[in-house]
Amino acid sequence: MTVNRYWRLDAHPQGQDFASALTLHEEALAPLAEREVRVAAQWLSMDAGTRMWMGPRTDGYQPPLPLGGKMVGLVLGTVCESRDPAYPVGALVRGFGQWADYPVVTPALTGLDIVDGNLADPREHFGTLGMNAWTALIGVRDVARIQPGEWIAVSAAAGATGSMACQVARNLGARVVGIAGGPEKCRYLRQELGAEIAIDYKADDVAARLAAEVPGGLNAYFDNVGGPILDAVLPSMALFGRVAVCGLIAAYDNDAPLPGPERYDQVLMKRLRIEGFFLPDYFGKTDGFLPPLRNWLDEGRLAMRFDETPGLENVLTAYARMLNGGAIGKVVVKVG
Amino acid sequence: MTVNRYWRLDAHPQGQDFASALTLHEEALAPLAEREVRVAAQWLSMDAGTRMWMGPRTDGYQPPLPLGGKMVGLVLGTVCESRDPAYPVGALVRGFGQWADYPVVTPALTGLDIVDGNLADPREHFGTLGMNAWTALIGVRDVARIQPGEWIAVSAAAGATGSMACQVARNLGARVVGIAGGPEKCRYLRQELGAEIAIDYKADDVAARLAAEVPGGLNAYFDNVGGPILDAVLPSMALFGRVAVCGLIAAYDNDAPLPGPERYDQVLMKRLRIEGFFLPDYFGKTDGFLPPLRNWLDEGRLAMRFDETPGLENVLTAYARMLNGGAIGKVVVKVG
Repeated sequence: MTVNRYWRLDAHPQGQDFASALTLHEEALAPLAEREVRVAAQWLSMDAGTRMWMGPRTDGYQPPLPLGGKMVGLVLGTVCESRDPAYPVGALVRGFGQWADYPVVTPALTGLDIVDGNLADPREHFGTLGMNAWTALIGVRDVARIQPGEWIAVSAAAGATGSMACQVARNLGARVVGIAGGPEKCRYLRQELGAEIAIDYKADDVAARLAAEVPGGLNAYFDNVGGPILDAVLPSMALFGRVAVCGLIAAYDNDAPLPGPERYDQVLMKRLRIEGFFLPDYFGKTDGFLPPLRNWLDEGRLAMRFDETPGLENVLTAYARMLNGGAIGKVVVKVG
Repeated sequence: MTVNRYWRLDAHPQGQDFASALTLHEEALAPLAEREVRVAAQWLSMDAGTRMWMGPRTDGYQPPLPLGGKMVGLVLGTVCESRDPAYPVGALVRGFGQWADYPVVTPALTGLDIVDGNLADPREHFGTLGMNAWTALIGVRDVARIQPGEWIAVSAAAGATGSMACQVARNLGARVVGIAGGPEKCRYLRQELGAEIAIDYKADDVAARLAAEVPGGLNAYFDNVGGPILDAVLPSMALFGRVAVCGLIAAYDNDAPLPGPERYDQVLMKRLRIEGFFLPDYFGKTDGFLPPLRNWLDEGRLAMRFDETPGLENVLTAYARMLNGGAIGKVVVKVG
C-alpha cells in the first residue's frame, strides 16, 4: 500500500514556532474523485505568502486555512494518477497542492500548469519560470512601470522574488539598488544580480545611503517587506515615484497589522503612487509574461539560486529559513 | 499716494496661532519692474495648501516662504498697471499673488490667468471654475478614475475642494459618501451636493457606517485629510480601490509628519492604489479640464457655496475658519 505523508495545520502558529502548529501524518491514498489529479511531488516551493494563510486573520487576500486540514503550498511533480483527461499520467505539472508526498489537485477549480519537461533543471519552474519570477516581472514592468535609466530599489533583494526583481529591472535597463541583510547577500546582489548598489540593512543606515548614493531619488521601489525599510526608503523617492507593494514580510508574523509608513506624507509631497498587487489577479494572462522570462533564461540573463532541503519531514526547517532571511534565492524542499 | 496694505510672514505659526506669526503692514506702491503686473485685488482665496508654506519644513512640495516676506495666496482682481503687454489694464485675472490690496505678479514666471469677466458672480473663478474645482476633477476623474455606478467617499466633503469632488463624482455617475463634521454640513452634502450618504465624523463611527451602508466597499476615496479618517476608510475599500490623495489637512498644523495609515496592509490585501496628486502638475493642460466644469456650471449641475469675509484686515480670521472646519464651501476675503 502506498502511503501519503502530509503536513496538517493544527493551530495558528505563533511567530515562527511552526513545530507547535503543524504535524506530519500518514494516510493511505484515497480514491480520486472525478476531475481530480494525483501528483507525485518532486519539489515543494516555500513561499512567504502562505504564512498569512496559517493565521486567523479573515481580512487578508485569502481566507485562512481551516485548522485540522492539510497545509497548502506550491508543488512541482509528475501526474501519477488522473481523472482529468487534460492531465495525462507522466506530465510534469506545477500548481497549488498540499505539503505531501502525493498532493491531489482539482485543476478545473484551482488550476494546474503542465510545464516544459525538458529543462536541464526542472526546478526552474519554481525559479526563473515560476511564480516568484512572474511576480517580479509584473511588479517591475506593469506596476512600477520602470523605464530604462530609472533607479529602482528592491527589498528582500536576495530572496526568490527580490532576486528576480533585481534582474528583471536590470534587463529592462533600470539601475538597481538591492536591500538585503548581511554581507554575503550583498555580494550576491552586486556580483550576480546586477545591482549597482547593495545596502545591508542590518549594518547600514538605509536612508543615509540612499540619500548619498541616489541623490536624484528612486523612481520606483519594489517592496517585499513594508515596515522600517519602507520608512527608510520613502523619503528617498523621486517625484512621481512608484511603490509596487508585493509583500509585507515584516507583518506576516503578527496577528495584528503593521502600522503604515512614518513618512506617508511623501505620497502627497512627491506625488507618489503606492500600489499593491497579487499574482493570481494576472492568472490567465500567462502568455503575456512567460515569454520574456524564458528568453532571459535562455540568454543567460536570468538565474535563480536554489536553497534546497531534502525530505518532506524537514519542510518546517526550510519554511523558517525562507521566512527568517537565512536563505539566498528560492527555498525548495526535495520530496520525491 | 496709493497705499498698499499687505500681510507679512514674520514667524512660522504654531498650530493655528496666526496672529503671532503674521502682521499687517502698509507701503507706498513701488514702480513695476519689466514684465510685472499690478492687480487691484477684489477677492483673496483661502487655501489649506498654503498652510504648509508658512511652516519650516523644506521637504514639502513647495519650499517654505521666507520669513519677513509677504504672504502668498491666490488673488482675483483687475489689472490696474501692467508692464506685460499680454495683461492689459482692466482685465480680470486670477493667480498667485500676495495677501495685499495691490498684489504684484510676474505672469511670465508664476502664471496669471485672464478669466471671463462676464460671469454673474466673478467669485466662480475661485469656485466652480477655480483651482479647487480643477483639483476635484483631476482627483475624481484622472487619479481615482471613477466609473459610473462606483462608490466614492470624499473627506472634508463640505469644504471647497470636497464639495466640488462630491458633485464631480455625482456628475460622472458615481455614488457618493460625503464625510464632514457636524449635522449642518451633512445636510448640505445630502441636499445640495448629491451625496447619498453623509457621515458626521464628529458624531458617527465612520468605519461602522461605511461597513454597514456600503457593504460592497468603496471603489475610490478622495482624501483631503489623512489621519484617523483615512484609518477608518481603508478597511472599507473594495478590491482594486483607488485613493486619490489630495491633501493631508490633519498634518498641516504639525511640524512633524503624521504617521501613515494604521491599515496600510490593506494596500496589499485589497490591491489598492494610493496616489498623491498636485494641481500645478496639470497646469498647461487647462483646456482639458475647464470645459466640463463650465458646462456643469451652465447646466446648473455644479455650484459652490461661498463663505465671504469682508476686509483684508480680517484675513487671519477667514484663514482659520477655512482650516478649522468652521466654514462650508469656499472661504474668500473681499478686498476691493
